[in-house]
Amino acid sequence: MQNPSVVLHGPHEAYVEDRPIPVLSEVNDVIVRVAYVGVCGSDVHFWNNGGHLSKVKDPLVMGHEAAGIVHAVGPNVTNIAPGDRVALEPGIPCRKCRDCKAGAYQICRKMVFAASPPYPGTLTKFFASSADCCYKIPDGMPLEQAVLMEPLAVAVHGVRLAGVHFGHKVIVFGAGTVGLFCAAVARDFGAALVLSVDILENKLAFAKEIIGTHIGRTATPDSALTPEENARLLVEAHGLEHGADIVIDASGAEASINTGIFLLRSGGTYVQVGMGRRSVQFPISEICDREIVVKGSFRYGAGDFETALGLVERGCINLKPFITNVFPFEQASDAWKATGRGEGIKNVIEAPRD
Amino acid sequence: MQNPSVVLHGPHEAYVEDRPIPVLSEVNDVIVRVAYVGVCGSDVHFWNNGGHLSKVKDPLVMGHEAAGIVHAVGPNVTNIAPGDRVALEPGIPCRKCRDCKAGAYQICRKMVFAASPPYPGTLTKFFASSADCCYKIPDGMPLEQAVLMEPLAVAVHGVRLAGVHFGHKVIVFGAGTVGLFCAAVARDFGAALVLSVDILENKLAFAKEIIGTHIGRTATPDSALTPEENARLLVEAHGLEHGADIVIDASGAEASINTGIFLLRSGGTYVQVGMGRRSVQFPISEICDREIVVKGSFRYGAGDFETALGLVERGCINLKPFITNVFPFEQASDAWKATGRGEGIKNVIEAPRD
Amino acid sequence: MQNPSVVLHGPHEAYVEDRPIPVLSEVNDVIVRVAYVGVCGSDVHFWNNGGHLSKVKDPLVMGHEAAGIVHAVGPNVTNIAPGDRVALEPGIPCRKCRDCKAGAYQICRKMVFAASPPYPGTLTKFFASSADCCYKIPDGMPLEQAVLMEPLAVAVHGVRLAGVHFGHKVIVFGAGTVGLFCAAVARDFGAALVLSVDILENKLAFAKEIIGTHIGRTATPDSALTPEENARLLVEAHGLEHGADIVIDASGAEASINTGIFLLRSGGTYVQVGMGRRSVQFPISEICDREIVVKGSFRYGAGDFETALGLVERGCINLKPFITNVFPFEQASDAWKATGRGEGIKNVIEAPRD
Amino acid sequence: MQNPSVVLHGPHEAYVEDRPIPVLSEVNDVIVRVAYVGVCGSDVHFWNNGGHLSKVKDPLVMGHEAAGIVHAVGPNVTNIAPGDRVALEPGIPCRKCRDCKAGAYQICRKMVFAASPPYPGTLTKFFASSADCCYKIPDGMPLEQAVLMEPLAVAVHGVRLAGVHFGHKVIVFGAGTVGLFCAAVARDFGAALVLSVDILENKLAFAKEIIGTHIGRTATPDSALTPEENARLLVEAHGLEHGADIVIDASGAEASINTGIFLLRSGGTYVQVGMGRRSVQFPISEICDREIVVKGSFRYGAGDFETALGLVERGCINLKPFITNVFPFEQASDAWKATGRGEGIKNVIEAPRD
Repeated sequence: MQNPSVVLHGPHEAYVEDRPIPVLSEVNDVIVRVAYVGVCGSDVHFWNNGGHLSKVKDPLVMGHEAAGIVHAVGPNVTNIAPGDRVALEPGIPCRKCRDCKAGAYQICRKMVFAASPPYPGTLTKFFASSADCCYKIPDGMPLEQAVLMEPLAVAVHGVRLAGVHFGHKVIVFGAGTVGLFCAAVARDFGAALVLSVDILENKLAFAKEIIGTHIGRTATPDSALTPEENARLLVEAHGLEHGADIVIDASGAEASINTGIFLLRSGGTYVQVGMGRRSVQFPISEICDREIVVKGSFRYGAGDFETALGLVERGCINLKPFITNVFPFEQASDAWKATGRGEGIKNVIEAPRD
Repeated sequence: MQNPSVVLHGPHEAYVEDRPIPVLSEVNDVIVRVAYVGVCGSDVHFWNNGGHLSKVKDPLVMGHEAAGIVHAVGPNVTNIAPGDRVALEPGIPCRKCRDCKAGAYQICRKMVFAASPPYPGTLTKFFASSADCCYKIPDGMPLEQAVLMEPLAVAVHGVRLAGVHFGHKVIVFGAGTVGLFCAAVARDFGAALVLSVDILENKLAFAKEIIGTHIGRTATPDSALTPEENARLLVEAHGLEHGADIVIDASGAEASINTGIFLLRSGGTYVQVGMGRRSVQFPISEICDREIVVKGSFRYGAGDFETALGLVERGCINLKPFITNVFPFEQASDAWKATGRGEGIKNVIEAPRD
Repeated sequence: MQNPSVVLHGPHEAYVEDRPIPVLSEVNDVIVRVAYVGVCGSDVHFWNNGGHLSKVKDPLVMGHEAAGIVHAVGPNVTNIAPGDRVALEPGIPCRKCRDCKAGAYQICRKMVFAASPPYPGTLTKFFASSADCCYKIPDGMPLEQAVLMEPLAVAVHGVRLAGVHFGHKVIVFGAGTVGLFCAAVARDFGAALVLSVDILENKLAFAKEIIGTHIGRTATPDSALTPEENARLLVEAHGLEHGADIVIDASGAEASINTGIFLLRSGGTYVQVGMGRRSVQFPISEICDREIVVKGSFRYGAGDFETALGLVERGCINLKPFITNVFPFEQASDAWKATGRGEGIKNVIEAPRD
Repeated sequence: MQNPSVVLHGPHEAYVEDRPIPVLSEVNDVIVRVAYVGVCGSDVHFWNNGGHLSKVKDPLVMGHEAAGIVHAVGPNVTNIAPGDRVALEPGIPCRKCRDCKAGAYQICRKMVFAASPPYPGTLTKFFASSADCCYKIPDGMPLEQAVLMEPLAVAVHGVRLAGVHFGHKVIVFGAGTVGLFCAAVARDFGAALVLSVDILENKLAFAKEIIGTHIGRTATPDSALTPEENARLLVEAHGLEHGADIVIDASGAEASINTGIFLLRSGGTYVQVGMGRRSVQFPISEICDREIVVKGSFRYGAGDFETALGLVERGCINLKPFITNVFPFEQASDAWKATGRGEGIKNVIEAPRD
């Protein structure tokens, strides 16, 4: 096959198929030879549902967390060259709309994002991108770890929007990859206290050991505790009488969202990074009475991949323990299934070698 | 009586009683001879429930929207003098906590706020305040209109937090006093479009005639329309295809809150000014996917009364039509009942003359 | 000639020459048939010096303030169509560097700006641009006035950086086109006081009559007054005891810069819009002791042309009096000379008709 | 003597004199038994000139960097108690003016600041303050080091205004106490590169050893190098081709100010912390062309002392090497003279024991 790609046709239907090798269509374009692709919760969702909200209309090349080696570059490309090892930012904004020009390209409505229908994903041998979306990785960084730059950029974006500074007390709900990274980034941005909260002991143990955060186990959704009671338990256990400066939710769970709001100090900031239900019960009077600011954080924007790489270059984060398993290209669906069963932190799929 | 005051004892129990005349306890204190006190929805709530969340423990002097004449000033007061006509900011912050020092005194946890238990309110003959909480009103402004500086400051605060600038499209839900003022302030801050939305025709007619906003009638809560459908109808009727830059909710209604979020453009700002239920169903995925910022707005802070008076001095707002009825001091409860029945825009109680 | 263009070869050497008609090289490109080109102080500088800091290496097509009619559009262009009347934003950023992506394209180091060597200017018959740099003008707006959108965008940018809001006291030094526009924009952004300061009576008279600002005549550079004395005179004449919230300098004159700093309140903002000497004597201790913020404002960025057009659409600014004279294409140098002699507000050159 | 105090009468005239013991005049007041007072460059200036700009009218108790033990507290004080070891913030703002209420108390025009005429300083046995201006120090922190909280708060304020975040490249001119602290704080706020620049080798050696910054020796003022040439040398030596994100000047030297501006990237931020001449030659066109933001930083504001203490509590800064010499109370002028001769980093005066 010229360009073997893992293509989703519907729920639990995905096959390796051939696709044309992409061409350089603009002077700043690049072709990347993909090496590894990380599995994200949204991949599992696509695999189980045959798409996001509805089944994909056309077969979709999957994957959006990727790293590889530059294969070819357009004539105007100067930041990278063939042979360079790169992490990929998998969305190319239109660069010309109001939002792009104002520096918020993450909300560009014409974004061409990998594996977001109808655009093909990175679970393929050759992937076309734009030179400014390819980031050279440090020499010592294995390519399979470089796929983590994407979820790390998600965390950087959320923590940046949250405005975490030196001395802040930060609580992060959810200890999956993004939640763990949010905790790590908050720590590296200078937080005086970082508290990772989850319902699973093993995730918390990982957070404590690898990220070095404080950890708090919260009640499971079937608990009879109200969010206020849940918050009070965490306050007492962690000396948070004055409230957290910042709460970041990377769980999407209604109970976490509510508990998080009650944990904030007056004037604190809440950032929603994780995705769950479309609508939740929400303590709006707390927002109002205590002038809390709530921000949505979507993917990543200007400078976030650079900061993610900066964190790695400065040795802030040990990425090795995050990579749980590497699956062969032909067994991509096994990687999705394992992730769906909650196995490990980050499962990675190896792209086809020659 | 030395200092006749309207005192709440419990649900539907309020009497005129005598209280000691307050004294100047600090060098910057002032005593104001109250002239008029406006009725706010929270007064009605207190009257009906005998308090806010629970019945007041001790009898409470009511009232927090007030204007009057300076009666006495401490030795260090320079901004006002006895005889000056002033609007009152009815809360005195501690000035020393973290929030006060950082410029957010509205969330000071030691705030001494009129008629917020256990602090006495302004429905009294003589009221003690701090000189910096008394604002001289323009010569031509009747004292009964000066009580409107308080709700106008609420609106200024909300519109300021919203960041309304020249050219913004702004939607305000709720056309009560605060909602109308929000619409007016947004217009005067340079909004290119201000749309007032309510379910009551008479309020919208007032908004159109007195504030000059565009108006949109939204579905009543018992309508079968979803917030998205509701939003779509308003979009079509008012050419809001690209979304509003800012939505301010001064209604507190769950349907308005949800419709408002769907009306925002990506990256837009939503401000909650009005108070309703403690918790509502809330479209959290919209916040996240479109990076919407949600802010709570509580009362007023630094500069808001000054801006409110600036609006009046520059002739931006015609306050006369807002004053519906003036009730005698002894009939304060009639003013609360009338407001509770939704009669008029702003009912005012006259303080006792000599 | 296919594409007659006014080309600068050196000091006082400029000729009408033929140039190739530009072609659509990208899917979002457009070709505009230029109608009018405004004369800017920098044109005069180029004319007198044969370039900016040194003589141009290669002959340079002049002009950067332009309006015209869309001649051809690339296949992906949707916002404009051939025949549309447009104002031109004369710089195309690279869209891919750190600054562009972060929303500050005005400081893009790869900006392709009209008549900034080696890029050709707008004083030509056919000019190539990008669709997002072409702004449809309102039906009633004459094309010769549309050239003013460029200096108006400069003013919008400066006033926006200054953070002018409702109630601010704003002083603008310099009453040339950009200074007058800054004053007008500050007024429309809600300033409570706008004071235009210049040394020329006729410019101040224009400011007063057309913009409606307060005016203040300042001492000429050969005056013996210190900046502090100069500032004190303006304070006394205009009731500025508490200092201005914002000072915008559109003069570039050392005396104005210094006087402006002394006129600011503590914590106020100073914005440098005008260009003069490379280095000036500057009261740095005032900046420090009173925590003044000084910002440089360069050209225009995201949203500035849209706001400039919004100001015109809402009838905020009467542009007619700004257009002093229309010069034929062949007499472009006469327009530069007239501007150099300080004749009129804005001189305009008509592009060649068929 | 009841309250021995070091009193300045004129140039090189200062004596130990008795003063009344201050009393608690407000419910939140405290009396502190001073232990140590640090010497600042401004003390030397006062000593040499007999005042700041002119000779003091009335004899002035000197000193404003102080630490001690709480002696007595007013009835409403809860944050500290007699016997507590505290660092002193030596200025009490009015708390009621526009700037105080807006969160910028450092520019309060009614500030009562120690040793700022006519207010007495901290070089005394008993000093009256406000409870919120006293900060408990960690158990292990010697009182003589606690005087460093004042210059450290100056540095925190400057670095905070500069907006230093993770990944920034920061250059600090001047390696005196404040400059060194600025470098340390920038590092702890997450800067990727901190470069300390000075003309003295010994100061740079200290910066390198104790703060761990990169160091750059710049040309002396009598050098023939222009600021641009000076900047180029530093760029080449430190790989700063893309410019610094932030420059902080803690030197006040004209050459540093100018070199600093040329070292900034477009859109970068310059903060003036150090004080030198009232007016300097300044490259205003660089500010304008590259949209640089210049901010003055004055003393410290809300939260700065807390952050300074947070830095110490977290072990970020080793204060011990900063304390050069401890002078007896009676030899205060020797401490000023030593500081004036540039001896050591921080000289400290011991307050009288019983």
